[in-house]
Amino acid sequence: MAVYTDVSFEDLEGFLSGYDIGVPLSFKGIAEGVENSNFTLQTDRGAFILTLYEKRMKVEDLPFFLGLMEHLDAHGIACPQPVRDKSGAQWSMFKGRAAAILTFLNGISLRRPDAAHCQAAGAALAGLHAAGKGFALVRPNALSVAGWHELAAATVTRADAVQAGLGALITESLAELEARWPANLPAGVIHADLFPDNVLFMGDRLSGIIDFYFACNDMLAYDLAVLLGSWCFESDGAYNVTKGKAMIAGYRGGRTITDAEVATMPLLMRGAALRFLLTRLFDWLNPDPNALVRPKDPREYSKKLRFHAAVRQASEYGF
Amino acid sequence: MAVYTDVSFEDLEGFLSGYDIGVPLSFKGIAEGVENSNFTLQTDRGAFILTLYEKRMKVEDLPFFLGLMEHLDAHGIACPQPVRDKSGAQWSMFKGRAAAILTFLNGISLRRPDAAHCQAAGAALAGLHAAGKGFALVRPNALSVAGWHELAAATVTRADAVQAGLGALITESLAELEARWPANLPAGVIHADLFPDNVLFMGDRLSGIIDFYFACNDMLAYDLAVLLGSWCFESDGAYNVTKGKAMIAGYRGGRTITDAEVATMPLLMRGAALRFLLTRLFDWLNPDPNALVRPKDPREYSKKLRFHAAVRQASEYGF
Repeated sequence: MAVYTDVSFEDLEGFLSGYDIGVPLSFKGIAEGVENSNFTLQTDRGAFILTLYEKRMKVEDLPFFLGLMEHLDAHGIACPQPVRDKSGAQWSMFKGRAAAILTFLNGISLRRPDAAHCQAAGAALAGLHAAGKGFALVRPNALSVAGWHELAAATVTRADAVQAGLGALITESLAELEARWPANLPAGVIHADLFPDNVLFMGDRLSGIIDFYFACNDMLAYDLAVLLGSWCFESDGAYNVTKGKAMIAGYRGGRTITDAEVATMPLLMRGAALRFLLTRLFDWLNPDPNALVRPKDPREYSKKLRFHAAVRQASEYGF
Repeated sequence: MAVYTDVSFEDLEGFLSGYDIGVPLSFKGIAEGVENSNFTLQTDRGAFILTLYEKRMKVEDLPFFLGLMEHLDAHGIACPQPVRDKSGAQWSMFKGRAAAILTFLNGISLRRPDAAHCQAAGAALAGLHAAGKGFALVRPNALSVAGWHELAAATVTRADAVQAGLGALITESLAELEARWPANLPAGVIHADLFPDNVLFMGDRLSGIIDFYFACNDMLAYDLAVLLGSWCFESDGAYNVTKGKAMIAGYRGGRTITDAEVATMPLLMRGAALRFLLTRLFDWLNPDPNALVRPKDPREYSKKLRFHAAVRQASEYGF
């Protein structure tokens, strides 16, 4: 098994002795998660995910992520729940890593969501933004402008080896985004990574949201930009405005989008595209030989970034 | 996801339309299987494994493997069962590969089995040998002497780069084994790969046997040699004769081991060690960049091969 951290059943038994979740029936490493080691665990009491937090995860962020999942659940959002151990802790150390057991959420992520799925995802994001109000902890977005600078510095000299002109695209986009990045749009808790992978459906019904490990406090409209940018492009690179309209309508069913947010949307879309371009480029240039998951192609997002740069007004997205 | 073949939920839905196994609730690639792509699939009717057969798997062998699992189940051996599709087929083509859905067997494989587990595994192997009688299909062992020759030819010139002296060890072992390899010991259907990974336990009870994709017709005692060689060595390289005795006693509860088999056991142990040394060495020298599983270290088996070469009589194994 090539998850980052190898966990034998005997290791697991030791860890589970600290929990009251029944007798293990099956235990398998799963091929998901760029950042962490994940295992499905079935016991006679239910299905769980064991996550060992690796690499980029800062232990001091865990109370935010795990606490947020509990807060959202208490406010009606279906998401995995950390199972507290016998001492009441949401996580503890295991094999030298922070580790948590979360409830397993049924549902399947879609590769080719249709407009109705986009509408449901938009509605779910608005619901998440509403439910996030009142969550006591705060975590700045580590992957906003300052974070982009760090990633650009670490990648830009090698960017043209990946795609001609990519270095200049990054440098120029970053300069302009930094100069114009908004500061006073409505803000709150955002998911920050609500790609189709992270939304589960049962048939056509949205059954839950997963992977809160990029969640943070930032502009709510930026979260919508991440959502539109990751759900509404076709595989040929075209933006599907029908899906965009459905997604925006779904979101507006739960929260009013202000005029200032709409006007800023082309800029936010560029920012979201740059963020995923930079993290993908970094992983592409620094592949982890132990990763289960192949690095995603950064060029998908350079293409999107160029598309957004040509957008003049938010109506082109379906606003 | 970095299983060999990427399967989206939409792909899966198309494939499942040919089956009558209910509505999918979850679907995940799993980090198991050197040879194939494996996915866990939960539906409202139960848990399944979807396997896409890759690489080394010959489609013409599937009727043997899948038919054997049905035959063994009908004769009381707990093992995964191929789910027949609506047309009655055990497998069909999917994404350009042969693919099958098998029932999911609860249980967990042990990393550090104790003597009682060894006894249970020995008993299960004897049960499998008995249950295999009467299975109509025949498959020669592709990884016996002729197969070792092919693997040796493909690896031996580079073997010393892995470990000094490894090339000579392979050449000399192969020559001696070929000259002395027995031909008239009791034979039948063997599992041929019954490592601890392939035996599931629920607590201390053996709950099933998995992974029949090396099963074939060969000497029954060779299967016992594979079992002893993969369960009874400690991580420091020592053979644990207590475990060996327990395993042999477990096996003898189900089948009488003949004097000729006992006398041949040191040779069979060397053959089994050479077989795993050669396949591991081949995979080590030819790593698949898309594999989920890191190649296993061949030197574990060169060490075992040298150990067996020094054994004078079967009593040293606990016979």
